[in-house]
Amino acid sequence: MSLRTPSRSNSRKEKNTPMAHLNRALSIRSNKEKSSSSGGKRFNLSSLRGTVQPELSKKLYKLIKSENHLISNYEAAGKERISIASQLSDWGEATNDEAISEISDKIGVLLSELGEQEDLYAHNLDDSRAILKTIRNTEKSVQPSRDHKAKITDEMAKLKAKEPESAKLVILEQELVRAEAENLVAEAQLTNITRQKMKEAYAAEFAATIERAEKQIILARHARRVLNLLDDTPVVPGDVRPAFEHTDQVRQILNDAEADLQDWQPELEDVPSMAGNLGSNAVPKEPRSPLTPRDHGLSLDESMMGDSTTQGDHLAHSSGTAQPASRISSGTSVTTGTAHTYAPSEIEPAHIVV
Amino acid sequence: MSLRTPSRSNSRKEKNTPMAHLNRALSIRSNKEKSSSSGGKRFNLSSLRGTVQPELSKKLYKLIKSENHLISNYEAAGKERISIASQLSDWGEATNDEAISEISDKIGVLLSELGEQEDLYAHNLDDSRAILKTIRNTEKSVQPSRDHKAKITDEMAKLKAKEPESAKLVILEQELVRAEAENLVAEAQLTNITRQKMKEAYAAEFAATIERAEKQIILARHARRVLNLLDDTPVVPGDVRPAFEHTDQVRQILNDAEADLQDWQPELEDVPSMAGNLGSNAVPKEPRSPLTPRDHGLSLDESMMGDSTTQGDHLAHSSGTAQPASRISSGTSVTTGTAHTYAPSEIEPAHIVV
Repeated sequence: MSLRTPSRSNSRKEKNTPMAHLNRALSIRSNKEKSSSSGGKRFNLSSLRGTVQPELSKKLYKLIKSENHLISNYEAAGKERISIASQLSDWGEATNDEAISEISDKIGVLLSELGEQEDLYAHNLDDSRAILKTIRNTEKSVQPSRDHKAKITDEMAKLKAKEPESAKLVILEQELVRAEAENLVAEAQLTNITRQKMKEAYAAEFAATIERAEKQIILARHARRVLNLLDDTPVVPGDVRPAFEHTDQVRQILNDAEADLQDWQPELEDVPSMAGNLGSNAVPKEPRSPLTPRDHGLSLDESMMGDSTTQGDHLAHSSGTAQPASRISSGTSVTTGTAHTYAPSEIEPAHIVV
Repeated sequence: MSLRTPSRSNSRKEKNTPMAHLNRALSIRSNKEKSSSSGGKRFNLSSLRGTVQPELSKKLYKLIKSENHLISNYEAAGKERISIASQLSDWGEATNDEAISEISDKIGVLLSELGEQEDLYAHNLDDSRAILKTIRNTEKSVQPSRDHKAKITDEMAKLKAKEPESAKLVILEQELVRAEAENLVAEAQLTNITRQKMKEAYAAEFAATIERAEKQIILARHARRVLNLLDDTPVVPGDVRPAFEHTDQVRQILNDAEADLQDWQPELEDVPSMAGNLGSNAVPKEPRSPLTPRDHGLSLDESMMGDSTTQGDHLAHSSGTAQPASRISSGTSVTTGTAHTYAPSEIEPAHIVV
């Protein structure tokens, strides 16, 4: 079906049939095969910087960089628009044509406001970008937990092959259980933060898109009313243009535009978040499962945000053993803010694969 | 009244009170005193190039250059947006979270279309810019006519002071009458082209602004519907997320968005042009004044577009004299396209100041 073909290379040619460029795949996921050609051409510097990021946060790190370029483009567009508005007004004055002078100036006012809205949009995109950073930071902080688990598993496998009777294996098994418990918390925090913040970031971004659009429609429609006051009836050589009689009307249109902008209110379908009970430690304040008994309410004042202490050796005081049925108190959070009291749920044995 | 203060330097700080930046003057005309600070900071290269333009077209020349920068910003924004859309989809896939994967991909599709609309907008701005070029080219071609008239006047003044009885004065007077006749045509062409094309260019620009806005509203509203299918209820460590069950709904939203875009039609208040009888020689095909007798319908096949032959010496065959009451046939046009037949009106004596 032609509406679903993945090609969109000819959108430029088809701009007079505006919908033709919708002929795209329902997914925009880049194929692994062509990712170097589609994604690699613009962000070489970012890509280099991205290599020092942990694997888990690399993609989002680059996306956030790209978002920064996008924002810069809109900031530049806003500034340029405001400059052009002023140039248009000055040009109009220099024509010594009263009608052109008046209308170019007022069109300039409206264009300048269009530019301000572009700038506001850039700022709103920046706010949305800041929300995405929360996800990236969480990804970054979860990486060491994954690495730690993998490292112990690897060490155990090597030791089992070399010295199957080594006493160190028991210690490593204990360490692995602790590492896995910690990682379970980290992964829960990651999914909680990721879903909540992705929803929040893009809801904000699309709200900003709608705000810019609705306000610019107000401005553009009033601007077209202003243009309608310009009489472009041609004159014959020697004719004198009649005096411009719409000065008051032009000003009234500007007043209308201003009033409409001031009356503007967002009318959006709500994007409610279900993350209301998410503590700042990124796990629910009230565990959902009624089967989970409250633990002894460890106070978590250690933030492990992007810290190498995530390696978890300071959990060695815990009473965890290698036995699958043991109750494990994983008292360490990977919060992105101040740590609050956290009552860890009982971690079900099935999740702990030693 | 605070709504009319010309200051708008603090718009960035006040973005949370979005209308506060409307506190601007009703005019945006730059003051002569501060034109160097407000207009000179961004376009140094353009300014240098601008100096080789005739005075008359300098301002518009620079404005058109700035418009080109604006268009480049939107093109870059469109490309960046499409790249980000793809990155978002890839990131979502890498999370190994089915819901995030599906939703990030479909949000990506909508973001990508937002980017395409930005690109279409850039193209539409470019079309509007091309219309402004017509004015600039006309300005450029009218300059020599003004210069020529000024040069003869100047020459006559010098000669009168030096040799008041010189026989050359009579010749110069004849030349001046011809130059003034030519200039009357040029100025009529200039005002006709300027008004018509300014109206056309900005009507197109604002129509494009409305098109981008309305289409992006469609996309953003559907995108928020997609986000609503992402359950961001937090999980406790060890919990498994329920399977994502909204795949069909997400696809349906994309279909809705596509259908809405395809159904989109411009709904604009018309900006009618009165320039319908403007010949391609930039003067009316039918002179408006019934008092103006048709002349002998000189066929004008010389386009003088930006050409030094505008100096008018080839008009020496005309029967014009220095007497104010003479009928002058100014048979030369400063068209911007192919010259058509033009029936010049009688130029009223009052306009010819020898």
